[in-house]
Amino acid sequence: MKLTEPSLLLDENKCRNNIAAMADKARLHGLELHPHFKTHQSQRIGDWFKEEGITSITVSSLRMAQYFADDGWEEITVAFPVNVLRRDIIKELCKKLRLNIYINCLESARYLEDKLKRQVGVFTELDTGYHRSGIPYENQEEIAELLDFFHQSEHLQFKGFYAHAGHTYHVQGKEAVSKIHRETVERLNEVKARFSDDIKIAIGDTPACSLADDFSGVDIIRPGNFVFYDLVQQQIGACSYEDIAVCMACPVVEKRPERNEVIVHGGAIHFSKDMLETSEGQVYGKVARLHDQGWGAPEAGCYLKSISQEHGLVKLSPEQMEKVQIGDWLGILPVHSCLTANLMQSYISLSGRKVTMM
Amino acid sequence: MKLTEPSLLLDENKCRNNIAAMADKARLHGLELHPHFKTHQSQRIGDWFKEEGITSITVSSLRMAQYFADDGWEEITVAFPVNVLRRDIIKELCKKLRLNIYINCLESARYLEDKLKRQVGVFTELDTGYHRSGIPYENQEEIAELLDFFHQSEHLQFKGFYAHAGHTYHVQGKEAVSKIHRETVERLNEVKARFSDDIKIAIGDTPACSLADDFSGVDIIRPGNFVFYDLVQQQIGACSYEDIAVCMACPVVEKRPERNEVIVHGGAIHFSKDMLETSEGQVYGKVARLHDQGWGAPEAGCYLKSISQEHGLVKLSPEQMEKVQIGDWLGILPVHSCLTANLMQSYISLSGRKVTMM
Repeated sequence: MKLTEPSLLLDENKCRNNIAAMADKARLHGLELHPHFKTHQSQRIGDWFKEEGITSITVSSLRMAQYFADDGWEEITVAFPVNVLRRDIIKELCKKLRLNIYINCLESARYLEDKLKRQVGVFTELDTGYHRSGIPYENQEEIAELLDFFHQSEHLQFKGFYAHAGHTYHVQGKEAVSKIHRETVERLNEVKARFSDDIKIAIGDTPACSLADDFSGVDIIRPGNFVFYDLVQQQIGACSYEDIAVCMACPVVEKRPERNEVIVHGGAIHFSKDMLETSEGQVYGKVARLHDQGWGAPEAGCYLKSISQEHGLVKLSPEQMEKVQIGDWLGILPVHSCLTANLMQSYISLSGRKVTMM
Repeated sequence: MKLTEPSLLLDENKCRNNIAAMADKARLHGLELHPHFKTHQSQRIGDWFKEEGITSITVSSLRMAQYFADDGWEEITVAFPVNVLRRDIIKELCKKLRLNIYINCLESARYLEDKLKRQVGVFTELDTGYHRSGIPYENQEEIAELLDFFHQSEHLQFKGFYAHAGHTYHVQGKEAVSKIHRETVERLNEVKARFSDDIKIAIGDTPACSLADDFSGVDIIRPGNFVFYDLVQQQIGACSYEDIAVCMACPVVEKRPERNEVIVHGGAIHFSKDMLETSEGQVYGKVARLHDQGWGAPEAGCYLKSISQEHGLVKLSPEQMEKVQIGDWLGILPVHSCLTANLMQSYISLSGRKVTMM
C-alpha cells in the first residue's frame, strides 16, 4: 500500500511480543488475564490474544462489547459504570455470552434488577485512591448495602471488586508504581475480608501490571495499553521505546529551516491532545526514523512540539533538518496510543495491509 | 429519537444565527466570506451557508475537499500547507471545481509544477506572529523567490497571502484581539505593497472575525469555529454562552454524593482533551441544563473537571447533586467544538434527527 495520508503503523511482532509477555506474566503469577480491548479496538488484534489462550476480555462500552461479541468472545466485562439506559443491549448481550458489568451505585442496581430477565455478572469498583469512579473503600456502609442487594438479587450476580489505580500514571519507576499497587491490593483485600472468600479481586492499570512483581491477593488483571505501549508508559518506566508497537507516519508539508522546524500533516484529529512534560518541554510525540522493517529509536532533539486540528509542528535537530525533504515521511511515536488509535480508526501493518478497527 | 449514548446536540437556530451574523458582517465590510468547514464537516450544515449566498468555502484537508466537492461546491480552498503526495487528488479536484491550495515552500511549488496538468489557485501563508506555518513576513527574499516562481509557473496561479493569527486565542476581549488583528493585517499589507495590487489578503481566526470592527486591507475572511462557537470563544469574548450551538448530552452513570460529583459517559473520545483554565480550576466542559427546546446557560459550580478515555468526572453544586439521578442526561458545553464534532461524527438536532458528517 502506498501511503499518502497520515497513517498509524502497527508492528505486529512488537505487538505480539507485548501480548505474549503479559500472558506469560499472568501465567507465572497464577492470574486470569482479561485484557482490555479499548486500546486496540480491533477484532484482528483480538485474534492474536486468542492464540495466547485468552478467552475473557474487557471493554469500555457496551458498543465495544457488541463489536467483540460478534467475533465470538465468550466472556466480556464492560469496565465502565453501567449506563442503565442501554438495558436493551445488556439483555441482548446476555443471550450471547457471559457478560459482566460494573455497578457502583445502589440506584443502578435497583434499576437493572427490575428490568433484566437473565443473570449478568457484576463487579463493583472501589476507589482506593484515584478518586475517579467507584465507592470509596473506607465507605463500609455503602459497600455492605450494595452487596446485600446483590445477595438478594435474582439477576445481578456479584463476582468481585475492581480498582483502577490510575495514580500510577503520576509516578515513575518500579518502586513508586509497586508501592501504589500494593496499597491498592491491600485496600481491596481489606474490604473483601469483611465479606466472602469467593469475591474476586481485579486490577487493571498497565504500569502496575507491567512493573509489579507481587500479585498476591489479586485474581484478575485487566490491562489494555500494554498491547501497544506509548511514550507515557515509557516515561513511567513500564516499557522501553523498543516495545512501542504503533507509530504515526506523517508527511512533511512545510520546512522552516530558520527555526529547525517542519510542519507535518498530523494534528489533534490524529494524535489527540495528550502531552508529556519532558526536559525538552511539552512533547506531543517523538520522532523515530522510519525504515523498511518499521522504525528506530527516537532521534535526539526531534519531537512534536505543538499541534492544532491538522497541523503538527515538529522540532528537528540541525542534522535532521539538513536532510528532510517535502513529501518525506516522519515516524512519530504517540504520547497516548489508546487515543491515537481511537482517532485513526485503522492500522497499517509493516507489510502494508490495512488492519481494521471497530 | 430516543438517546441512550453520549450525543452531540445541535441547535439549528443558534447555528443559523451564527452563520447569518457572520455573513451580514462580511457584507457590511465588503469582505468575501469563505467559511472554514473543518468545524462542522457536514454537507447538511453546508446547505445553511448556501442559503446565505456563500459559494466559496475553506477546508483543512484534501479529503474534506473531496467530501464537499461531491456536494457541488464550486470553489474550495484547502487551508493547509499542500501535501504533495496527494497530487492525484489535486488533479481530480481541479477537473471538478476551482481549487485553491496553500503553498508555503519553493520545494512544494517546484514539485507540483512538474506534476500538474491544469491550473490551481495558490495562497501563500505568511507568519505574522503565530509561528506555526507560513513564511515569516519579514523574510523578503523567500517570499520574493516563491512569487517569482509562481509568476513564471504554468499551473500555479498565485492569488494571495493568508495569515492565521492563532495568537488571538491567547488573549481576551475586543481590544486585545483587535490589536493582534490590526498588526496581522498591517504586516500582510506591508508585504503585499512590495508586489502587486492584485494580491488578495485573507485572514481566518474566529476571534478577530467576530470581534474586530476594522477590516480595511482585508479581502477574504475564512473563520470556521463561529458556526458553533464554544467555551474557548466565550472566554475570549468572541461569543456569549447563548451563541454556542452544540452541546454534548451525557448520561449519568454513577453518583458520588460524598464529594458532589457524578460520573458521566463522556470522555476524551467524545470531547477531546482540550481544557480551559478558569477561576474554578481546569475545566473540560460546563454543565447546562437540558430542556425540550435545547439547553440553558451554564449552571454555577457545575463543570466537567476531568476526563479519561470514556469517563467524565463532573463537579456539581450541592443543589444539583441533590436532584440528579442515575440515567439522567447532563448537557455539557464543549471547550473546543471543532474537536468534539470531529470525534462525535454526527449531530442530533433538537427535533431528534441525525445530522450526518464527513
